[in-house]
Amino acid sequence: MTASPFDHPFLSGLLGDDEIAPYFSAEADLRAMASFEAALARAEATHGLIPAEAARKITAACAGFSPDLASLRSATARDGVVIPDFIRQLRAEVGEEAAKSLHLGATSQDVIDTSLMIRLKAVVFLFAGRLSTIAGALDGLDRQFGHSRLMGHTRMQAAIPIAVSDRLDAWRAPLETCRDRLTEQSFPVQFGGAAGTLDKLGPQAAAVRAALAQELGLTDARQWQSGRLPIADIAGLFASISGSLGKIGQDIALLAQAGQEIEIAGGGTSSAMAHKQNPVAAETLVALARFNATALSGIHQSLVHEQERSGAAWTLEWLLLPQMTMATAASLRLAAELTGNIRRLGTA
Amino acid sequence: MTASPFDHPFLSGLLGDDEIAPYFSAEADLRAMASFEAALARAEATHGLIPAEAARKITAACAGFSPDLASLRSATARDGVVIPDFIRQLRAEVGEEAAKSLHLGATSQDVIDTSLMIRLKAVVFLFAGRLSTIAGALDGLDRQFGHSRLMGHTRMQAAIPIAVSDRLDAWRAPLETCRDRLTEQSFPVQFGGAAGTLDKLGPQAAAVRAALAQELGLTDARQWQSGRLPIADIAGLFASISGSLGKIGQDIALLAQAGQEIEIAGGGTSSAMAHKQNPVAAETLVALARFNATALSGIHQSLVHEQERSGAAWTLEWLLLPQMTMATAASLRLAAELTGNIRRLGTA
Amino acid sequence: MTASPFDHPFLSGLLGDDEIAPYFSAEADLRAMASFEAALARAEATHGLIPAEAARKITAACAGFSPDLASLRSATARDGVVIPDFIRQLRAEVGEEAAKSLHLGATSQDVIDTSLMIRLKAVVFLFAGRLSTIAGALDGLDRQFGHSRLMGHTRMQAAIPIAVSDRLDAWRAPLETCRDRLTEQSFPVQFGGAAGTLDKLGPQAAAVRAALAQELGLTDARQWQSGRLPIADIAGLFASISGSLGKIGQDIALLAQAGQEIEIAGGGTSSAMAHKQNPVAAETLVALARFNATALSGIHQSLVHEQERSGAAWTLEWLLLPQMTMATAASLRLAAELTGNIRRLGTA
Amino acid sequence: MTASPFDHPFLSGLLGDDEIAPYFSAEADLRAMASFEAALARAEATHGLIPAEAARKITAACAGFSPDLASLRSATARDGVVIPDFIRQLRAEVGEEAAKSLHLGATSQDVIDTSLMIRLKAVVFLFAGRLSTIAGALDGLDRQFGHSRLMGHTRMQAAIPIAVSDRLDAWRAPLETCRDRLTEQSFPVQFGGAAGTLDKLGPQAAAVRAALAQELGLTDARQWQSGRLPIADIAGLFASISGSLGKIGQDIALLAQAGQEIEIAGGGTSSAMAHKQNPVAAETLVALARFNATALSGIHQSLVHEQERSGAAWTLEWLLLPQMTMATAASLRLAAELTGNIRRLGTA
Repeated sequence: MTASPFDHPFLSGLLGDDEIAPYFSAEADLRAMASFEAALARAEATHGLIPAEAARKITAACAGFSPDLASLRSATARDGVVIPDFIRQLRAEVGEEAAKSLHLGATSQDVIDTSLMIRLKAVVFLFAGRLSTIAGALDGLDRQFGHSRLMGHTRMQAAIPIAVSDRLDAWRAPLETCRDRLTEQSFPVQFGGAAGTLDKLGPQAAAVRAALAQELGLTDARQWQSGRLPIADIAGLFASISGSLGKIGQDIALLAQAGQEIEIAGGGTSSAMAHKQNPVAAETLVALARFNATALSGIHQSLVHEQERSGAAWTLEWLLLPQMTMATAASLRLAAELTGNIRRLGTA
Repeated sequence: MTASPFDHPFLSGLLGDDEIAPYFSAEADLRAMASFEAALARAEATHGLIPAEAARKITAACAGFSPDLASLRSATARDGVVIPDFIRQLRAEVGEEAAKSLHLGATSQDVIDTSLMIRLKAVVFLFAGRLSTIAGALDGLDRQFGHSRLMGHTRMQAAIPIAVSDRLDAWRAPLETCRDRLTEQSFPVQFGGAAGTLDKLGPQAAAVRAALAQELGLTDARQWQSGRLPIADIAGLFASISGSLGKIGQDIALLAQAGQEIEIAGGGTSSAMAHKQNPVAAETLVALARFNATALSGIHQSLVHEQERSGAAWTLEWLLLPQMTMATAASLRLAAELTGNIRRLGTA
Repeated sequence: MTASPFDHPFLSGLLGDDEIAPYFSAEADLRAMASFEAALARAEATHGLIPAEAARKITAACAGFSPDLASLRSATARDGVVIPDFIRQLRAEVGEEAAKSLHLGATSQDVIDTSLMIRLKAVVFLFAGRLSTIAGALDGLDRQFGHSRLMGHTRMQAAIPIAVSDRLDAWRAPLETCRDRLTEQSFPVQFGGAAGTLDKLGPQAAAVRAALAQELGLTDARQWQSGRLPIADIAGLFASISGSLGKIGQDIALLAQAGQEIEIAGGGTSSAMAHKQNPVAAETLVALARFNATALSGIHQSLVHEQERSGAAWTLEWLLLPQMTMATAASLRLAAELTGNIRRLGTA
Repeated sequence: MTASPFDHPFLSGLLGDDEIAPYFSAEADLRAMASFEAALARAEATHGLIPAEAARKITAACAGFSPDLASLRSATARDGVVIPDFIRQLRAEVGEEAAKSLHLGATSQDVIDTSLMIRLKAVVFLFAGRLSTIAGALDGLDRQFGHSRLMGHTRMQAAIPIAVSDRLDAWRAPLETCRDRLTEQSFPVQFGGAAGTLDKLGPQAAAVRAALAQELGLTDARQWQSGRLPIADIAGLFASISGSLGKIGQDIALLAQAGQEIEIAGGGTSSAMAHKQNPVAAETLVALARFNATALSGIHQSLVHEQERSGAAWTLEWLLLPQMTMATAASLRLAAELTGNIRRLGTA
């Protein structure tokens, strides 16, 4: 039951990522959803919209909440979203009195989009660190081999010799740009209620939203339930990372094919030819770059998000963004490995 | 650990498919791989390339072979493909003498591509049946409501009234075309050896390949390891199916919004508004159509498959085709449900 | 005013095609539209729906009709399609009496889609011839160099030597498949009237449509105004052609980079380095393959064609299909040139 | 000879843009290329790399330079780029002595990429103005109808009433974000020489590049000839604009279909039905959004830009970016028209 190579019993060895995958587990999603509901209750209690006691009970219930997955699954089949059943189960946990205060003024999309942002924020922090590691590995290569010569190639023909430093600069520059963008990326809370107007919260709406954002470590922002630039931005950034790493992968595969100017440790074996050393990681970087370039198109299709909430456009994001994240994660992991395995670059 | 909604603990209720998912489990893949090795051994024994006794032992070992998944996973990380380690484990199972006869003249791509075709053939048979079911449901609606009137719309404006039959004809025609194509689709064996030349099999190469294809119920064909039209064709067919069903979904969502001309049972509930009945299946058909339209682009990118085997282009297929299959499966499942839930279409 | 390189004053030298471009000129489109109206009038006269005299006048007027382009342009801005103004102008040309018989029972989409099919049919015939030329060039190379040796490469690493024939077979097989498909491709007339029901033609509708199709050399078929598989099929075929040629281009670029196993005449010069010979055609084949792979995605998005006619989905086709055709044309032209320029392949 | 609707004799009425198209004419491109050469000569003269007299002659020759287009076209066919022949012609114009100082240390990509940036900078300035116009129109609607009621729709079902203001806010917010990004967008000069190392300019390389950038009004930046994030960023921004406008178009088309809550002046006529008023601009916004979402994928594929310069990846950009620009232009033009044509929104 593993159509996705990111989660696959054996393909995940190549294409998965043990550190990032847990952020896209159902458990992590449900935990972040529960933290949304708890934070919302506290924010609403602070602003006098629900009793403090209810907020306490909701917070306590959310802390250890472990919903019935089979029920969630069949409800999602019916409702198209998990939240109605999630709330139903959570209400039962919370107890009759406080239940009325749960999820007050919120809607499915608030919970799901915010849960996504909570997890993306954590993931992006890790991605920035990985980019630094790769840039560091390139720096190390530069110190060791920067003055060696490499034949520069344009239009797939030998052009003029360049220094190894020149190639490394071309590899590193976009990674540094991407790392800076990751650290500047904002992760907005989504909170709009039934139709984006926070109609049930009255004049306190904006204050509650700000408090909610702060509780969750997210940026306070006007609802973006039908304006999906935050999603397109992150997807574009992920595709920029994997695309820039794909260029490195392609370059290394070409160097490995020519054979004289690079030495790499590791490398794959072949079931038919014992003598081969395949630059598996380099090729996989190209595959992952092309995967994200492909998926990005679908994310941008979903900007045509009709009315106050489009089930079609929103579901399309679910089909694409988590996997773009995983592809970026695998890409970063493999690039770190690959650059760390380079034993020699260029010729003296 | 479930970035893919097709395999997700709760999202799979909406986007998964219990009947088709097992064909993309690691177990099904490994079983089909083992059946390739067994069929190859028998074909080679028939043509005197390996001892009959070896073929018997290999067949027996393959029948119940259950490889160590952890080992497969770490080997895939290293080799980029599962086969070298799969063969190593299977050799140990087969015993020293017969081991020399295992996988003779084959390469990783032969096993993996053929396993895919074995499973796609079974899946496509089921898809054709589902298309017939949906066409049957449309026939039933035609019998019941065909003479009712529906406002025809062009460019999102009321145009002139049409008969319900007219709309149903427009929905059904592409489904029938797709069903015919599914039943005519050929599923070629892939067998080429290290570089596509079956270099180890000598003059018997073509005969062995034909026998192998027959054993596996596949079409005998020249190796297509770097000529990936068979993959692009199937992907195009899947996208044609989900695209045609997406049109139906979009039409039904528009009918449901206007409200007068359709009555549907089922439909989703909302966490914020008790009165709503969301046409969840209809919207999801649109999302799945757009997902496959997006992914098809990546499959066509992988036609640029350099030299005798491209790790980059091939891995890109793995990232896309299984999920396109699942999206098509979900799309067919939801369309059957949705058309079966229509209680009234048009006005008298 | 030439954002498109296919029509560009100088880029068209590389990316255009002088033989195919005229089929996508406004003149060719208008001529095919006029031939639709003339053929329709004759078919309707034959079946007694309009006077024979009117059909004669319409045919005569259509023969030399040269509409006012500025008027067409501003009307298209208003109407989203050119036909209302085209018909208005043609009515003036035809004279008051016959004017009532013009365009009877037809709608904009009938004229535009049918004009496209008329032109695609001619283009596809030329494409099939070009594929034969390329296959012939590969045959010639096979006779000359088929027994020479080429290093087989898998995963961008030298694997085992193969014969030049083996590589040529891998190049030729998909081209032959595509050529066969081109010759089998059907080009359906589109004729449905306002909402696809031929509501104004009564019981003669099917007979008129069949006569119209025959007049125009197209296949008679039920209207497909909202069922766009015919468009997706042709687009998929074009992408299959350029994708298969892109693989050849990538292979040749890699051979040219390594340098020992190929000799090519022609090749581009550089503004910075006099010594270089760039494999321009080979690289351009890759670019065109990726362009079509990209555009195909949009064509499949347009399968979600709502109701009886979607202005959005239909306009999206206009933005993509003509250029996919041009990309395929350029790809075939360049592949013929490039394969014709190969002076040596492999080593003795 | 007009496969592209952006430049088409009549389709450009709908899909073209008279203000922006000239920036993508061959003339404008050649003019920007000549201004690159003139600015480079002046920058190099300032730093003592070429005689001041040569710079004067080059500047004078560039000012009125009108190259032979037929020659450029056939040379582009051979070289894959226009620059070698452009420089050859310009050298003849400049005179023998100064000719040696022309294009010193530069390469084709420097001229072409920088010409693109010069023109994109001008275009982006106009785009920012258009976004302000549209935002202003939305402000006007807000003042007039902001307190009117609109039925909020989620998942294509009536949800709860919202204020017209709420919908207008959702439309305006992403436009304001995009406008801010346009004004912050940087346009880097490209200057790297044969292999990106400015090998011919010695220690003055960076100073010359800075002077060149300043002359041209561009940002000074390290060469990005194989690191194509600047292209991907602009393409992503364009797709974000057209995607956000596509959402508005889809919403308006849905409002127009329902009929009660909107009144629009203008609108298209039909060749078959006199009574219809088609929301042509609204639908076209959706088509253009999906076109750019599609094309963006190809731009991201071209991030896999191998070695020092990839003919394949670079040419792919030429096939996509100018048209994405035109699609964005048309989208902005139509959105301004459409929002200006709204006579009523919501109900009292």
